[in-house]
Amino acid sequence: MTQPRDGLVADIGEFGLIEELRPIFSQPDDVVVGPGDDAAVVKMAGGRCVVSTDLLLEGRHFRRDWSSAEDVGHKAAAANLSDINAMGGRGTSMVIGLGVPGSTPLEWVRDLARGFADETAEVGASVLGGDVSAADSVVLSVTVLGACEGEPVLRSGARPGDVVAVCGRLGWAAAGFHVLGRGFRSPRVVVEAHRRPEVPYDAGPEAASLGATALIDVSDGLLADLGHVARASGVGVDVRSDAFGLDEPLQAVGAALGVDPLAFVLTGGDDYALAATFAPDVRLPDRWRVVGAVGEGEGVTVDGEEYAESTGHQHFA
Amino acid sequence: MTQPRDGLVADIGEFGLIEELRPIFSQPDDVVVGPGDDAAVVKMAGGRCVVSTDLLLEGRHFRRDWSSAEDVGHKAAAANLSDINAMGGRGTSMVIGLGVPGSTPLEWVRDLARGFADETAEVGASVLGGDVSAADSVVLSVTVLGACEGEPVLRSGARPGDVVAVCGRLGWAAAGFHVLGRGFRSPRVVVEAHRRPEVPYDAGPEAASLGATALIDVSDGLLADLGHVARASGVGVDVRSDAFGLDEPLQAVGAALGVDPLAFVLTGGDDYALAATFAPDVRLPDRWRVVGAVGEGEGVTVDGEEYAESTGHQHFA
Repeated sequence: MTQPRDGLVADIGEFGLIEELRPIFSQPDDVVVGPGDDAAVVKMAGGRCVVSTDLLLEGRHFRRDWSSAEDVGHKAAAANLSDINAMGGRGTSMVIGLGVPGSTPLEWVRDLARGFADETAEVGASVLGGDVSAADSVVLSVTVLGACEGEPVLRSGARPGDVVAVCGRLGWAAAGFHVLGRGFRSPRVVVEAHRRPEVPYDAGPEAASLGATALIDVSDGLLADLGHVARASGVGVDVRSDAFGLDEPLQAVGAALGVDPLAFVLTGGDDYALAATFAPDVRLPDRWRVVGAVGEGEGVTVDGEEYAESTGHQHFA
Repeated sequence: MTQPRDGLVADIGEFGLIEELRPIFSQPDDVVVGPGDDAAVVKMAGGRCVVSTDLLLEGRHFRRDWSSAEDVGHKAAAANLSDINAMGGRGTSMVIGLGVPGSTPLEWVRDLARGFADETAEVGASVLGGDVSAADSVVLSVTVLGACEGEPVLRSGARPGDVVAVCGRLGWAAAGFHVLGRGFRSPRVVVEAHRRPEVPYDAGPEAASLGATALIDVSDGLLADLGHVARASGVGVDVRSDAFGLDEPLQAVGAALGVDPLAFVLTGGDDYALAATFAPDVRLPDRWRVVGAVGEGEGVTVDGEEYAESTGHQHFA
């Protein structure tokens, strides 16, 4: 196979690009048919398949001047694997649709594929194949398949009296996004958190085994996502503002930008932390932090009151 | 739920659009968790999952002025279900990514969803959910899951001495595409064939049960797709030009546009017919037509000679 160091996608065509990318994705034993046929075939233990899909568009969900190709691949894979995590499951397989301008350097596409391969490898999942097309800007569709050991944990099982707990970073990616938006590149840790989230992948199955009554990943922002849980469960959720540790980088960004760092924590998405509800007598491992409680009623409050910035993403607004 | 007859996508936002579309998709008994959670969960018999994904972009894969929204939904679903058909399997579930400009009428998006719902219902499959996003033009990603009763039929099993047979229409969609490209709207049957393919869904499992050695769906064009089979199987394929019935509409379009109608049959994609190879002693049902033979060597010939227009799609060229 040729690897033109400075070639463009347009130089090798659709089939050439597929051949170029295929060796980047290794195929484990549970793959019956890998890339290259009409469809892939994968073994699926337990008789059930968990599935989620995301569409990611350049300029809306990522920027090529803010993130490297590898970052984009990591984050796109992470966002989808996180959805399986949020069911208490584990991602096993992924298929990718890639639309890309012919003027795109091959190196960019290979790096993107490496990001996907590395992030899926973190959970032992594999990329089974996909579809490529010319496009005016980069378009990514990601579909992940996964498995649950037990019953999937839904958004709808929270009960009054339950505690609300979170696991993973909150607000870091949002702080990084705001820093980049102001034209800065530091603090580096939050910029990195925006580019490549650190998803607590094993915390989803852990929450399931701990008896979580509801589970969601924080992609729209904690209050917005707890709002989904409250609505689906027919309950109210109250969060205590003093329950969060305001990590030092968030305080630094807040001070520099004149923003309350708590806003990052409560409304920032894209860290792919988990939020779960548990029966009040649950004993949680250290990395889970109790931040609130479920009650009668509806909606999400902070210290008993409505929070001003709790809307989360509304892409068409 | 409100149904603003003349509303736009921008009026109701991302979550509103999801709520608008959800009731269009019914969920059969094998769906454990349908739309509305972090991921869907579906029962998957046989311990294996067949999966395929496609990315479809407005202006490249469909045109809103050439096809209705329902047509686009039907065809996008059909193209993916056909990939499962081409493994000898049957599609069971689908997830959809939809990028759409805020200025799009809600009615267009509802009709699109109805097209997806109706086409998937033809094989007893269901739409489990998806993702929506604002976009500059319509972007569709379609991922289909399916099941095979027996072993999947790959592209790589054709052996010298096998016969090559096809099932389904060939060239109709291409004739319709050329008619539309010249600004005409008739013959209506070929325009309709371009807009909404008639996929022989049960012929894939049938081919598998008849012992097909290789199987592919004709999406790039018969010669191009047989080329994939020849390459994967390490064989040559020869097609007999007199084996095809040149359907009357193809003759009419050929005469009107000054094109050899055989070119539509041999190089036209998007009808999602099936091409298969079988052992020479196979007894095929009537709808399968033997059109060639597998031999030693490589590549695809027509009446023993190279065919001038055998390149198929090359999207980046």
